[in-house]
Formats: sequence, structure tokens, C-alpha cells
Amino acid sequence: MISPDHPRYNSLILREKMANAYQEGILADTALIAHGRGEAFDYILGENTSPAALQAIRTGISAMLLADNPVISVNGNTAVLSAEYIVELSRLIPASIEINLFYRTPERVRKMEKLLKNAGATEVLGKGGDDHVTIPGLGGPRSRAHPEGIHRADVVLVPLEDGDRAQALVSSGKTVITIDLNPLSRTAQTSSITIVDNVVRTIPLMIKEVTTLKRYSRKQLKEILDEFDNAKNISKSLNLISHHFKQDE
Amino acid sequence: MISPDHPRYNSLILREKMANAYQEGILADTALIAHGRGEAFDYILGENTSPAALQAIRTGISAMLLADNPVISVNGNTAVLSAEYIVELSRLIPASIEINLFYRTPERVRKMEKLLKNAGATEVLGKGGDDHVTIPGLGGPRSRAHPEGIHRADVVLVPLEDGDRAQALVSSGKTVITIDLNPLSRTAQTSSITIVDNVVRTIPLMIKEVTTLKRYSRKQLKEILDEFDNAKNISKSLNLISHHFKQDE
Repeated sequence: MISPDHPRYNSLILREKMANAYQEGILADTALIAHGRGEAFDYILGENTSPAALQAIRTGISAMLLADNPVISVNGNTAVLSAEYIVELSRLIPASIEINLFYRTPERVRKMEKLLKNAGATEVLGKGGDDHVTIPGLGGPRSRAHPEGIHRADVVLVPLEDGDRAQALVSSGKTVITIDLNPLSRTAQTSSITIVDNVVRTIPLMIKEVTTLKRYSRKQLKEILDEFDNAKNISKSLNLISHHFKQDE
Repeated sequence: MISPDHPRYNSLILREKMANAYQEGILADTALIAHGRGEAFDYILGENTSPAALQAIRTGISAMLLADNPVISVNGNTAVLSAEYIVELSRLIPASIEINLFYRTPERVRKMEKLLKNAGATEVLGKGGDDHVTIPGLGGPRSRAHPEGIHRADVVLVPLEDGDRAQALVSSGKTVITIDLNPLSRTAQTSSITIVDNVVRTIPLMIKEVTTLKRYSRKQLKEILDEFDNAKNISKSLNLISHHFKQDE
């Protein structure tokens, strides 16, 4: 349907993927609106992974490799856009995968589980009948944390997370790595390590980075973490956007 | 459901309106994604109408008042977000209203007609059985132009239009006024008068402006048009966005 010659081919393919997933009942309608917001920011960023994002990716992987209990929290949009890569990343680190839906329904949780299993996941936390502990400061279904997953995790990768939940996870003392195309979002501003990039580019790059950083000593990984300044890194993305729009005055 | 205290209350209300309209079958799923893109740009613009946008609004209304056959082209998102205001504006100018859907289905056209009639429209062009002429350079349903509407119009207001159609309308010699939150979109860049703002703020402001400009002579209205430089006006919006993101380096 969409010609590969179209200047925005990749973006249109993702849009179609999301619309189909919505039709299949995996996503809530607000997930499509959220995807549109992401599209706009990605367009602004030139649909490219910036050097600042690469640095944040490297730091995020260092934190995950150093973690005692790293967990990848997966919502609908992340699963639809990059289930296979998420599963591969979880295998390489290794890290647990936990389902985390903002608009949680039993049907959607089942469909998410199926999607992740089809993508190769052997174990998925946060399923329908699973135990859960409440994340302090949150109410409703999104306050759920699996006792063996996010609850006891020291490092959590939460792509496309909402601001309240990111903040609650940081407040409970966890290192929160997020992937968010809006560098000014509360999630981006609150998280410990913010990767301002599109998940469809970031997760494959994270996989590549694991291969490299697995050869590093813990000391070297700690140095990467210590050198990283999240606020400064976000500033670089903000300036990138600023330059994109700047006109001669 | 949504607390009026929420810092992004208005935006959340619109999101809900769009999601409901989707459930009712008025909108295609890509309309929700398009709304999300708009949300992102509106957020970047501070959810405010800029002085540059106000100037474009004033110019757009001058063009409509000077027109022999002004037409307002209405798509799904515009109708859902501001049907009542569109109808009021069409009554005040006066201008015809024409339905124009990117993903045109008989059912969606019927629902659009009903929505516009419920909002007070007495006549709506572009209905199911209506005649239509092809806009040169376009194919498929979006090439439709009503012989008494867009086809013979000299000035067309097309909020939230796609790039191909905006370009085709301009190429056929019409003055095209658009409302688009992305100042870099092809629609924004191609149109004759580009209002970089949210339709929900723009249309009410256009109504206000009609009341003022109706007292102006044709000569005065022509002066407003002559003084306007669309490229320069768009640059102002771009710089506004650039400043929004700029960090000290």
C-alpha cells in the first residue's frame, strides 16, 4: 500500500502497524494519540538517533549490566512497535520482562502476553493472575508491580512511560531508564537516564551496545555511569530541536 | 473523569472528544494519530495563539470577506473539534461548507453531515449523492470538489489539510487558508495563508475577527492582504518554537 519511495515511509509503516494493533484490541485509542505525539517529536528530531541519545543508550545499558535485578517494563505501544527486540534485549542483559498497561483490561493483558510470547519471550511477569505489590504514590492498575519484577528491581527500563509512574519509580529509589521522544515531558525530566529517541531505533541500538559493553569491567561500566549527566544530556536534545526550527531573524 | 485542575485539562478534554468520535465511527484510526501529532505541536507552542497566528487569522478573514466564492472545507478532525464554530463562521462570512474526507466512506460522510447539521448547518456540500469534479493533480476520493463549492471557489479555508491536497488547491489558482500546528508541514509551507494554531482556538478567533473586519472597506481589507508575507509569518512561529527549546550552551 505505502510506496518505499515515500519520504516518510518508515513513519507510515509504523503508523499502519499501530492502527492494526488497535483494530486487534491490543491498544487503547489514546495509544494512537500518544503515537501521534511521538511521530511529531520524531519528525522534529529528523527521525534520527542523535549523538546525545547514543550516549544515553550507552549509559542505560551500563546501568542494566551493573544491576542486580534489571527489569524491562513493557506497555502496549512498546510491545507493538518492538516486541522482538525487547525480548532479545531481555535475553542478552539478562532482564525480566513485565507487562505494564495504563489502561489495563484482562483481554489486553492476554493479548500482550501472546504478542511477547510470539516474539520469543519465555517468561513474562505482570500477567492476569500474577501477584502484585502497589508502587507507593500510585493508584489504580498502573500502580501494579510484580514482587519478583519491578517491585524488587534496582534498575527499570520503562520506554514510553507516563509521568506519574516514572516519578513514583524514581521516588521508590530505583534507577529509571526511559525512552521518550519529548525531552520536556515529565517522564523525560524525572527519569534517571533519558533516551530521547524512537523505541524502534533505540532498542536495536541497545542490543548492539550490550555486545560491546559486556566486555567491559564493572569498574569501566561504573565510569560510564558516573560521567553521565542526564540534565546536560537532555539539554543537548533540546538544543537540537531548537536549531531545527531556528530561522534567521 | 478529568479534573479541571489538571495542568493539561483542555488538551485531555479534546483527546477524549476525539477518542469518542472514533468510537462513533466518524474518524479513521489515523485521525487519532494525526490528533496526537497536533497535540505535540500545540504543547510545543505553549497551547496559546501567538501574535503571528493572530496576524494570519486577520489576513485569512480579510481574504474570505473579499472572496467571490469562499468555501470552508471540513474534514473529520475539524468537524469533531469545532463543528459549531465552523457553522457560525460560515454563516457570518457567508461561506459554503464542504465535506472533505481523506478516508471517505459513505457511512462516515453521512455521520459528518449529521454532525454538521446538528451544529446548525443548513446546507452542506460534498454529501454522498452530490456531484463532484476532480481537482487536477489528485486521485481517489480526496480529489473530489463540489461544482458549486471548492471547484468554483476563489478562496478556500482548509483546516488540517494534507499536503497533496493543499498543493493541488494552490496549483489550481485558489487562495488557500490553512490551520496547521506544524509550521514545517507541506500544507503549512504550500498554503497562501498559514495559521499556525489549534483549530479549537483559531475558529472562535476568526469569528471575532469577522465582526471587526466587516466594518472595513474592501480597500482596507486589500491592504491587510497586501501587507501579509506568509513565509515571514511562518518564520515567526518557527522561531517561537526554537526559543521554547533553546538551552544555555
